[in-house]
Amino acid sequence: MEILQQSLAELKKQVDRRTQQATHPEVEASVAAILADVQQNGDAALRQYSQKFDGVTLTDLQVPQAEIDAAYNNCGPELMTALKLAQRNITSFHKKEISYGFIDSERPGVIRGQKVTPLAAVGLYVPGGTAAYPSTILMSAIPAKLAGVKKIVMVTPPQKDGINPAVLTAAKLVGIDAIYQVGGAQAVAALAYGTESIPQVDKIMGPGNIFVATAKKQVFGKVSIDMIAGPSEIGIIADDNAQPAQVAADLLSQAEHDKLARPMLVTTSLDLAQAVNVELETQLATLPRQEIARASLTDQGFIAIVADLADAFTLMNTIAPEHLEVQVAEPMQYLAQIENAGSVFLGSTASEPLGDYVAGPNHILPTSGTARFFSPLGVYDFVKRTQFIQYSNAALQPEADAITTLARTEGLEAHARAIEARFPEEV
Amino acid sequence: MEILQQSLAELKKQVDRRTQQATHPEVEASVAAILADVQQNGDAALRQYSQKFDGVTLTDLQVPQAEIDAAYNNCGPELMTALKLAQRNITSFHKKEISYGFIDSERPGVIRGQKVTPLAAVGLYVPGGTAAYPSTILMSAIPAKLAGVKKIVMVTPPQKDGINPAVLTAAKLVGIDAIYQVGGAQAVAALAYGTESIPQVDKIMGPGNIFVATAKKQVFGKVSIDMIAGPSEIGIIADDNAQPAQVAADLLSQAEHDKLARPMLVTTSLDLAQAVNVELETQLATLPRQEIARASLTDQGFIAIVADLADAFTLMNTIAPEHLEVQVAEPMQYLAQIENAGSVFLGSTASEPLGDYVAGPNHILPTSGTARFFSPLGVYDFVKRTQFIQYSNAALQPEADAITTLARTEGLEAHARAIEARFPEEV
Repeated sequence: MEILQQSLAELKKQVDRRTQQATHPEVEASVAAILADVQQNGDAALRQYSQKFDGVTLTDLQVPQAEIDAAYNNCGPELMTALKLAQRNITSFHKKEISYGFIDSERPGVIRGQKVTPLAAVGLYVPGGTAAYPSTILMSAIPAKLAGVKKIVMVTPPQKDGINPAVLTAAKLVGIDAIYQVGGAQAVAALAYGTESIPQVDKIMGPGNIFVATAKKQVFGKVSIDMIAGPSEIGIIADDNAQPAQVAADLLSQAEHDKLARPMLVTTSLDLAQAVNVELETQLATLPRQEIARASLTDQGFIAIVADLADAFTLMNTIAPEHLEVQVAEPMQYLAQIENAGSVFLGSTASEPLGDYVAGPNHILPTSGTARFFSPLGVYDFVKRTQFIQYSNAALQPEADAITTLARTEGLEAHARAIEARFPEEV
Repeated sequence: MEILQQSLAELKKQVDRRTQQATHPEVEASVAAILADVQQNGDAALRQYSQKFDGVTLTDLQVPQAEIDAAYNNCGPELMTALKLAQRNITSFHKKEISYGFIDSERPGVIRGQKVTPLAAVGLYVPGGTAAYPSTILMSAIPAKLAGVKKIVMVTPPQKDGINPAVLTAAKLVGIDAIYQVGGAQAVAALAYGTESIPQVDKIMGPGNIFVATAKKQVFGKVSIDMIAGPSEIGIIADDNAQPAQVAADLLSQAEHDKLARPMLVTTSLDLAQAVNVELETQLATLPRQEIARASLTDQGFIAIVADLADAFTLMNTIAPEHLEVQVAEPMQYLAQIENAGSVFLGSTASEPLGDYVAGPNHILPTSGTARFFSPLGVYDFVKRTQFIQYSNAALQPEADAITTLARTEGLEAHARAIEARFPEEV
């Protein structure tokens, strides 16, 4: 990877991707057309697009339960054990995100509160082919279940040789209610508007290509969405204590995802930087996805040399990486300096793939610098809040003047009169 | 208002607005052009659009502190008292929404947790002219402050005769850091991309016209936004116990907002329905915003007669109203039946304007049926969460096989090797 030795100010400019998000007007337009078509023509449109884009002629949109059961029953014991360990740890972590609202009766005659209610139905998009990740199904469905969501459906592009059995197995394990073999913008449209076979949901989540991401953005407001996901990122802060082989291995674990994936190393040690580059070459040599990883390292990756760890954290807060590894001595003491990051891995043992699979925290994370304002997927994404108040007339009385004053200041006479209608004898 | 007497199924069809959200391709296009122009040309573009759309030639974009102080110091005691009561109650309610993350060390050698961090900077859009509401500034800035947001800026359309003093007073009261006199899609663009004078923020909130709403939607992903707000709505569930004069007054308090505002009454009593219609006529006669309110009642409003309260709540859950009044005996007992609503007003005293101004719960609420998945504005809107984990090698060991199994199932060899790099002696 390219080694950058510049002032912090220079480095900050280079890594600031906030204004670099590409827009694709032509994609926007074709996605808008697909959404309108599905809203109009429902299943018929879905079948057309599956024929056109996936080259598959669909009879049933829904994957038969028998096919799901068969995949689950034929799942090897090693994979089943792994999935169940992940399920256990993801559940125990996300349980701590459950919130219960509150009720406040501090003032006599006044009850105020907030009620937390699960979303009624959510839809999970699962990419097709090699990008079909059973782990992502656990990461999205488990928090939804913990939130109390009654209906969780899944959409995934049809495959000529059937849906990936590991995906079907994970779906059954976490209790997905129905799986529909439809993908792309048309699948997002189906979940947003509903069709004869596919139910409308309240929220659409899950990763996807540019068409899926654009469709999610366009239906936002009609339904909720999790986030607009970009290429995967890993930022590693390392000092002399870090082991080049481990740093390199972790950078490669993100680089192998995608040629656009962004591996970033920020270190106080030029020696480490150079040793990591040597290790990268060695490890690349035997990597199956060598070509993808190399492109990511060369075109997207970089190593920044900084004066001290304070600068390293300042720079990383500007980057706001999806994954942040802190491979320094006593890493926990730096937690306070981390402002913008999706998921943080403290110490040399906390390799990023540990978080991808079994540690328990979510792996659906904000990318492209959006960790500045977005959060990892969690139970809080699957509930909505409802406020409530109840007042006695005696409690309203001392506040009535304030209300009528504010209402009339804002030119809203009927607001003031609605309050006065509670005290007819005085008017 | 029109009285509907139909089956619940028929009523549900009539009130389901989910597929009724209008789209405006021409607005989308002109907003996109404005966003691009501001991103390119910064302040210069802002000045052009202020000239073009507001007919105002701006010298300073920022409102001088002297002007703000003058408005604050000249604020009448009644209004100041009212604003401070509202501030106190809004603060005490939203304090209960503060969350602190967690740390979990249940397994030996494993630390897992979630850190809650305030957004660094947020931008508040305040409409101009008669729709400039000081109360909305309190409702958005107070939760942001409670969340710990360091920088809160405000944008509002320039006015030939200066910004509304009540707006400037409220802004100073809650500690807005800077006020910029720019409005429309160009103001949203300035907050999303930053210009020479206006800082880029992490989240844009506040109501606005179709151009503002469209701009917020288009910049979503580059920054966060609160929600896409539609016309105001009130749904009232009433039985024989309700007083027609109060029900009518509350319907009018929403109807006066906007010809598109949606006043809805669902009742078990035809007598009440008819009495409310009589009251509406009487009260309309002397209402300053009579014309707006009448249009809203006639074109958007309705009264639905249902068999029992169970049907009333079922219908309201389909509507998912922004405001829901429950004017029945022992209203609190029906809380469990409310699934979709922004803010709920229990009992005959809890008139909706009470919640608009001083009760404390937020008045920035999901509209157009989005209470199915969106929440009232709250402290949780101004923070993001960051996960973290730390593992000892001893803790990783028993989970290593599960990780490598899942990684290789997903075809991600480098993920597996990153874990194996933690146990070099074994490889």
